[in-house]
Amino acid sequence: MNSDQSLDQSLENLLDTPSADQELFELLRIQSVSTDSTRVPEMERTANWLQHKLSSLGFEAAVEATAGHPVVFAQKIVSSDKPTVLIYGHYDVQPEDPLEEWISAPFEPTVRGDRVYARGATDDKGQLYAHVRGVQLLQELGDLPCNIKFLLEGEEEMGSPNLGAYISANATRLAADVIVISDGSRFDTDIPSITYGVRGLTYLEVHVQGADRDLHSGVYGGAAPNPINALAQIIAQLHDEQGRVAVPGFYDDVQPLSPEERAAWATLPHDDAVWAASIGVSELIGEVGYTALEKTWGRPTLDCNGIWGGFQGEGSKTVIPAKAGAKISCRLVANQDENKIYSLLEAYIPTLAPKGVKVTVKPHHHGTAMVMDLSSPYFAAAERATERAFGVKPVFIRTGGSIPIALALKTALKCEIIFLDLGVNADNLHSPNESFSLKDYHRGILASAYVFQEIGKLGKNL
Amino acid sequence: MNSDQSLDQSLENLLDTPSADQELFELLRIQSVSTDSTRVPEMERTANWLQHKLSSLGFEAAVEATAGHPVVFAQKIVSSDKPTVLIYGHYDVQPEDPLEEWISAPFEPTVRGDRVYARGATDDKGQLYAHVRGVQLLQELGDLPCNIKFLLEGEEEMGSPNLGAYISANATRLAADVIVISDGSRFDTDIPSITYGVRGLTYLEVHVQGADRDLHSGVYGGAAPNPINALAQIIAQLHDEQGRVAVPGFYDDVQPLSPEERAAWATLPHDDAVWAASIGVSELIGEVGYTALEKTWGRPTLDCNGIWGGFQGEGSKTVIPAKAGAKISCRLVANQDENKIYSLLEAYIPTLAPKGVKVTVKPHHHGTAMVMDLSSPYFAAAERATERAFGVKPVFIRTGGSIPIALALKTALKCEIIFLDLGVNADNLHSPNESFSLKDYHRGILASAYVFQEIGKLGKNL
Repeated sequence: MNSDQSLDQSLENLLDTPSADQELFELLRIQSVSTDSTRVPEMERTANWLQHKLSSLGFEAAVEATAGHPVVFAQKIVSSDKPTVLIYGHYDVQPEDPLEEWISAPFEPTVRGDRVYARGATDDKGQLYAHVRGVQLLQELGDLPCNIKFLLEGEEEMGSPNLGAYISANATRLAADVIVISDGSRFDTDIPSITYGVRGLTYLEVHVQGADRDLHSGVYGGAAPNPINALAQIIAQLHDEQGRVAVPGFYDDVQPLSPEERAAWATLPHDDAVWAASIGVSELIGEVGYTALEKTWGRPTLDCNGIWGGFQGEGSKTVIPAKAGAKISCRLVANQDENKIYSLLEAYIPTLAPKGVKVTVKPHHHGTAMVMDLSSPYFAAAERATERAFGVKPVFIRTGGSIPIALALKTALKCEIIFLDLGVNADNLHSPNESFSLKDYHRGILASAYVFQEIGKLGKNL
Repeated sequence: MNSDQSLDQSLENLLDTPSADQELFELLRIQSVSTDSTRVPEMERTANWLQHKLSSLGFEAAVEATAGHPVVFAQKIVSSDKPTVLIYGHYDVQPEDPLEEWISAPFEPTVRGDRVYARGATDDKGQLYAHVRGVQLLQELGDLPCNIKFLLEGEEEMGSPNLGAYISANATRLAADVIVISDGSRFDTDIPSITYGVRGLTYLEVHVQGADRDLHSGVYGGAAPNPINALAQIIAQLHDEQGRVAVPGFYDDVQPLSPEERAAWATLPHDDAVWAASIGVSELIGEVGYTALEKTWGRPTLDCNGIWGGFQGEGSKTVIPAKAGAKISCRLVANQDENKIYSLLEAYIPTLAPKGVKVTVKPHHHGTAMVMDLSSPYFAAAERATERAFGVKPVFIRTGGSIPIALALKTALKCEIIFLDLGVNADNLHSPNESFSLKDYHRGILASAYVFQEIGKLGKNL
């Protein structure tokens, strides 16, 4: 038994899973939906709860105000000779609707089988809390092997509108040698992975105005502009018949996938038909000529995320509504600039409107696409830690998701980011019945402890 | 002063407007939204209220059960030698949403200027109650000049699903020489009109299903089917570039407008640009080559009345929803068959779906288009009555609206229908801030009394 194996055994034996589970459930009960303005008190409760916990672990921890929901910042500096890891996570969660589709209440964590079901179970409370408990586990053994900082925000599901300013103002305090983020999905249930690329995002809203009031569809129908029909015409023109986004200039800056990367991804255990079946569809859509992994990891998209207009109730109402609207977002890839893409959409969408309606476009949040340098020794450290926790080597993948603040952190702190994903897609993140495998949570706690150990071994100033 | 003028003077002097207004307001306070299953007790209250009022006028009046909301049937037979008029009206109203756009509460009738604002003010409580008070007014003079029956239903805004069966089962009791319906808009504020044609209707719902659950738009975006995008593509394909409905066979049975009718309508005081400005739009839409009157009175349409899918709340949610849907209706003209048109749509819409989604179409209600025989003497009687009440001759027009039950009544009772519209389009029927001009209500009471007098003069068995 080598030294790592003996450490692994010690940590596994020390892991107090009932206590770790109960604490996570307590965190999951707090309804920290950041986009819901009625839940500001819940947001504050969550931040205070985390601050209290980290203080109890000997961290210097504070709830720090922003223009929006507060940041929890905590640090424990054990030695200036040791490297510093910054853990980023977010304590806010997606809205829980549609509520009627939840099997158990979204804010009452319920264990069924190996899984705990609750909004935020995997995204991101379960994953961030694995790091908190990873720290606690290491402290059972003695001193921490490296300096650790936590940056836990409350606005990730809103696009982190205030974290950029916070990071700029606090870059010195946040300074680290490497950033670790666990806020995504591993490649598959039995395959751990390290993610080296994330897509960017631009999110916007389109409003279409017809008449100045709702109209009777009999009296006015046939001559009055219909904002729903107009909106449908606009949306239908945003893709061409090849599944490409039909916005002029949209692909101008896209970094094409290299033949090497496409070849590496082709070796991963993935089958488009199985993947389609896993979400209950008979066929996939998208750009002709790309696999599903390529489409979701390496190609940009445009999706409607919401649409509304007119009468949505039970029965029928013979109305031509005054207005209709939609939420639309694009996932972006390196080197697309999210602000440039937003400007293209903002200028182009109104030109697609049929006559008689007024169209306005307004921005929500943006995020930048990024791809990491895999040659950094921190990736090797993370690979070893993951292998220790999961028993198999991780694969290196990209994700289709976006972590809008990642580039801001990378730029301000001038260090690499390791995306050490602990969840899986089957966790139903952003959907009803979100869950997190307790086995993954427990392996995540170990992976966190091991990654701190491995990074500690690398020493300072690589 | 001739005899009519003296009668006019008597009736005008007898008209007790404060009492007529207060009674109407009482009726408007009852929240008789037929499509809202939580308001069944309000529906019953409305029917009982009307039955009570008609009984107090000496009518044999009863609330009669149907498979849905009840019918109020009332009759007063003064002589078998006199003609019988059946008044049809409906006591149910449209849903009040969007509630936030109402200036005063929809079920608290509020007078501003000459108008009373409330849901149902013009459609149809105000118009049907003008006939109740018209009867009351005549009774102040003595006996009624003709036999009068009231058929007041509670399901017009749902498409009268049970009235057809009621009419078939009660055709003998309902028997009349002519039917009078006041449930629409006059040609213009200062121009009374008699409507001789109504459009038909087919109303349906389209459901689009993508994945079996809501998906994260990052993880799945670019490859997973998006039901909103798919629905938009479907809707966009339902019209061609000439503004025509692009459903094969849709126009096959359409009775073209005659050159004579187009010429008559062209003499009416109407300006498309003024009409567009009146609803706050810069341009009208629709079939190329037709005026707005032709498009809305004499040509068929397809309009979305509602659309929904994904996240509609405040902020942003990066979701690809599992499903999306829309309510779609077509206004139809003579000789289109509403069932045939529904079948065309039901078969065609799913063929428009892009791959990866499942599309289902389900019917709501239907109505038949109809055009009356203007040579009937009852139209001349109605013309004289209207001139007496409004001081000017009425114009003869069609409406774009639908009265789904009108053809059933005409067929079962084998008599003409006079659409004696008392409202105006500015009443905002089916919209927030629905209202009815009290002057129109009072003239309507007089027009009702005069129409009974004029029909009485025609005698029996024309």
